[in-house]
Amino acid sequence: MSKLVYNFSAGPSVLPKQATKEAADAIIDFANTGIGILEMSHRTKPIESMVADTDSMLRALMGIPENYDIVFLGGGASLQFCMVPMNLLDQNASADYTDTGVWASKALKEAKQFGTVNVVCSSKAETYNHIPKQFNQTPGATYLHVTSNNTIYGTQWKQFPKANTYLVADMSSDILSRQVNVSDFGLIYAGAQKNMSCAGVTVAIIRKDVLGKVSRTIPTMLNYATHIPEKSMFNTPPVFAIYVMNRTLSWLKQNGGVPEMEKTNNKKSDLLYNVLDNSKLFTGTAAKEDRSTMNIPFVFKKDAVAAEKVEGFEKEFLAFTKEQGLDQLKGHRSVGGFRASIYNAMPIEGVEALVKTMAAFEKKILG
Amino acid sequence: MSKLVYNFSAGPSVLPKQATKEAADAIIDFANTGIGILEMSHRTKPIESMVADTDSMLRALMGIPENYDIVFLGGGASLQFCMVPMNLLDQNASADYTDTGVWASKALKEAKQFGTVNVVCSSKAETYNHIPKQFNQTPGATYLHVTSNNTIYGTQWKQFPKANTYLVADMSSDILSRQVNVSDFGLIYAGAQKNMSCAGVTVAIIRKDVLGKVSRTIPTMLNYATHIPEKSMFNTPPVFAIYVMNRTLSWLKQNGGVPEMEKTNNKKSDLLYNVLDNSKLFTGTAAKEDRSTMNIPFVFKKDAVAAEKVEGFEKEFLAFTKEQGLDQLKGHRSVGGFRASIYNAMPIEGVEALVKTMAAFEKKILG
Repeated sequence: MSKLVYNFSAGPSVLPKQATKEAADAIIDFANTGIGILEMSHRTKPIESMVADTDSMLRALMGIPENYDIVFLGGGASLQFCMVPMNLLDQNASADYTDTGVWASKALKEAKQFGTVNVVCSSKAETYNHIPKQFNQTPGATYLHVTSNNTIYGTQWKQFPKANTYLVADMSSDILSRQVNVSDFGLIYAGAQKNMSCAGVTVAIIRKDVLGKVSRTIPTMLNYATHIPEKSMFNTPPVFAIYVMNRTLSWLKQNGGVPEMEKTNNKKSDLLYNVLDNSKLFTGTAAKEDRSTMNIPFVFKKDAVAAEKVEGFEKEFLAFTKEQGLDQLKGHRSVGGFRASIYNAMPIEGVEALVKTMAAFEKKILG
Repeated sequence: MSKLVYNFSAGPSVLPKQATKEAADAIIDFANTGIGILEMSHRTKPIESMVADTDSMLRALMGIPENYDIVFLGGGASLQFCMVPMNLLDQNASADYTDTGVWASKALKEAKQFGTVNVVCSSKAETYNHIPKQFNQTPGATYLHVTSNNTIYGTQWKQFPKANTYLVADMSSDILSRQVNVSDFGLIYAGAQKNMSCAGVTVAIIRKDVLGKVSRTIPTMLNYATHIPEKSMFNTPPVFAIYVMNRTLSWLKQNGGVPEMEKTNNKKSDLLYNVLDNSKLFTGTAAKEDRSTMNIPFVFKKDAVAAEKVEGFEKEFLAFTKEQGLDQLKGHRSVGGFRASIYNAMPIEGVEALVKTMAAFEKKILG
C-alpha cells in the first residue's frame, strides 16, 4: 500500500483517487473487451462512445450551449497560443491581450506572428501580483484574451471583463472550479493536466461563428475546422488522457458538479487565506481582491525571518511538511517561497493538514 | 481475470503485457513517491529522469548517433506532416515525396503549403498495392520523404532509396521492428501508438544540421529548435505516454533489442504469408517483394467465394475468429477483407492461433 500523500503540485496535479483507480483498471481491460484501453483502436465503438460521453459530460457540467463545439487536442495550451490567432485573427486585424502572468505573456507574444496585438493592460512591473482591471479595449479588435487564473502568481479574474466583441480565455488552471457563463466567450481552451485529467490533452470550446473569418491557409492539423466535424477523431487522439478526463468528470458529477466544487474551493481557499492573514510567520503574495482559489503562493513575512535565514528556513519548512505527507509545496522560482495548489481533487482534509502543519512550524520557529 | 485476447488492431495496438502492467501500477504510485504518475509535475526529478532514460534507451536500441536529437511531442504523426516542411523546407525550395499510401499522400499534400513538392512516384492507381521503386529524384530537392511502412496496404520499403540529399521518414508503423541505419536519414518521425507506446506521443529524431535553414517564422511550439534544448520539457509533455514508451523500450531491451524483434517479426510474418500463399480460400493483397512484416491485409480468393457471398462470409470469419479470442481483424475499408497487424508485442502464439483458425474456417467453408 502506498502512504497517504497530499499532493499540492501546480500541475500535473492531484486527481480524484476514484478516477485514477478506474484509469489504472482500464489499462488491464477496458469495457470488458479483454483489451486494455492503451491498446484499443480509436475507431472502435467503446472508444468512440467514451469520447462522445466525455463531450456530453463536459457540456452538461459547464452548461456549454449548442452553438459551441468541443475538441480534444494534443500539444498543450501552449499550442493553443498559436492556434487561437491562426484560426481567429486575420493578418490585418488586431486583438486585445491582457498581460497578467507568464502564460498570458507567452500567449500574446505568439499572437504577434498572426496580426496586430494590443497589450491593453499589464501587471508585470509588480511581479504580476494583481489583475489590472482598468483598461480600454481597442475599437474593432477581433477578441479580448484573458488568462482566467494565473497559476504562478495565484491571481484570478473574479469577474471577467465585458468584451466589446468576444472573450477568448485560457482556463487551464481553473476550468470546472467555478461557474462561468460560457456564452460570454468566443473560445475557451484549457490544458487538462490541472483540473481535468493528466497531461496530454487540451480542450477547446469554440463558438461556431468565430471560425472561418481569416484569409490565411491554416495547416490541416492546426485548423479547428478539421477536428470539429470529425469529433476529435481526424487522427488518433490522445485516447487515454481523454479517458482520465472522462473519469474525472464522472467523479465531479457524482460530487455535485461545478456549483459544489466552487463552494468547496471557496471553503478550502478561505481556510488557507485566513491562516495567512493571521499568521506571524507566513503571508500571501497576491492582492486580496484577486486571490486565486486554486493556487496560493505564500512566503515568510519580511519582519519575521531575517533575510539571511530565509533560504534555510524554507528548506526546513519543506522538509517539515513532507514529513507530514504534504508534498510539492515549493514555490515557483519567480515568486519564491511556497505554493499550495488546491485543485478540485484536493480534499479539504489536505488543506486542514497543511494549516495545522503551518501552525506547528510557526510555533517551532517563533515560539 | 480478463480472458485471453490476441489483439490484431492496426493502431492503437497491442503492447507488451509487462509494460501495460507497469504503467497501470505507476498510476497508483510512481517511483515509490506516494504520488501517481498522472499527478506528478514534469519538473520533478523522477519524471525528468524517466524522460531522459527514455531518450537513452531509444538511442541505444536504434543506434542513434550523437549528432541527432530526440524530441517527444504531442499531436500525432499528422502534426509532423506540417512540422517537417515548416522546419526543413524553405518557401522557394522543393522536396521529393513518394506516394505509397494514404498517409504518404496526406504528408505530401500538407508540404505543398510550405514549398514546392515533387511527387516522384505513386502506386495510387493500383490501390497502393506495391512500392514504386523506379523514379528520379529532383536535382536540388531539400529532402526525399518516404513512409517506411504503409499500415493500410501492408507494404514496406525493404530497402530505402538512397537520397541525393537526405531522407525524411514517417516510421509510425514499423519503427523498432527492424534494423535501420539512422545515419541515412535527416529526420525520422513516428506516432508511438503502433510499436512504441499508447496514443498521445510522437517521436522525432532530428539530425542537427538539417535545422535552421528556412527563412520563415515558425510558431514556437511547432519549432523543433524550441523543444531540443529543453529536452521536450518546454511545456508539459505527454508524460504518461512517454512512460508507456519507457516501459515498452525496457521490455524490448530485455528481449534482445531490435535484431531479435526483426528475427521474430520475420518468423511471424513468414508463417502468415506462407499460409496465404498456399490457401485455397485466402490470399494476400500486397506485391510479394514489398510485403510488410507488420500489417498483413488479406481477402477471400475471387475464385473461391462467389461475389455475392463475400460479405456474408467475411462477417462469419470475423465472428469465428472472435470466438477464438482473435480480435480486430477487420480490414481497412479501402482494401476490404481482413488485416492482421502483428507488431513487436504480438507473440508468435497469436499468429499461430490465427493461422490455425484460418485453416479451420477454410475447412468449414470449402470442405
